[in-house]
Amino acid sequence: MQFIFTPIGIIHTPFEDIEAMPIQPSGARDVRGQIIIDEQYTDGLDDLEGFSHLILLYAFHKSKGFNLKVKPFMDTEHRGVFACRAPRRPNQIGLSVVRLLKRKGNILHIEGIDVLTGTPLLDIKPYVPAFDSFQTQSIGWLKGRDQLAETLKADRRFEK
Amino acid sequence: MQFIFTPIGIIHTPFEDIEAMPIQPSGARDVRGQIIIDEQYTDGLDDLEGFSHLILLYAFHKSKGFNLKVKPFMDTEHRGVFACRAPRRPNQIGLSVVRLLKRKGNILHIEGIDVLTGTPLLDIKPYVPAFDSFQTQSIGWLKGRDQLAETLKADRRFEK
Repeated sequence: MQFIFTPIGIIHTPFEDIEAMPIQPSGARDVRGQIIIDEQYTDGLDDLEGFSHLILLYAFHKSKGFNLKVKPFMDTEHRGVFACRAPRRPNQIGLSVVRLLKRKGNILHIEGIDVLTGTPLLDIKPYVPAFDSFQTQSIGWLKGRDQLAETLKADRRFEK
Repeated sequence: MQFIFTPIGIIHTPFEDIEAMPIQPSGARDVRGQIIIDEQYTDGLDDLEGFSHLILLYAFHKSKGFNLKVKPFMDTEHRGVFACRAPRRPNQIGLSVVRLLKRKGNILHIEGIDVLTGTPLLDIKPYVPAFDSFQTQSIGWLKGRDQLAETLKADRRFEK
């Protein structure tokens, strides 16, 4: 069983290179970008302006292959890949929640974006706290480390 | 440009049929399910037990094709598909946040699951409030309707 996905647009950001890029949107709060959606999908963006936050699903297009155990940016030990947000995963789908500043036709202006420029966008969903915001009881190996993402920068460990 | 994804496992739930299924995890808080991960990926689940909540990305395998404008379960008007969570989208990827009850080898026991049994799972990410929980300023057409998802049930409108 396979699923074939074609990007609906491209995310443009100031990040030309993985080196020194924020590792999560929490480290890129003021970073602005644009999403240029393929014109055939423009009508699908209607009603999006009403939402302050969007979920972006995109392809980690610079990562090839995967490891089941990875050493995440925020840790010194190897962890199971599904307990990490690292890009070298069996299906290389990334997820970031960003702020929507405005829509102009097929272009979305966003803030708080942490991906490489040229990243292929697969889907957009409206962020709805009733569906997406949860109080957790535990955050595993990230306990006491999650705030590191506000300052830590990426390196080349997850490139091919 | 295309991306080919192969499921990493299958989500098993009590929902055999789309009719009368909850439309969001908020309508399925007590619903339990199991995810059976392909054994080749078992080691990638290590360290996941530490997290109380997981993000599941899966394929809406019963939906074929898409509409740019859809009438969502929670509304009476047509909306842009990217402003909705409906399954008939250009890339049919679904997202649900669920509670992890326990892991046993390649099996994950979960709670709060709102998908059809047999749904192909594409990825698991740990849910981390610092990355994933946001206070929104606006939720567009869902304003005053988001709580409906706790009781509304699905119908066949998004099948082929």
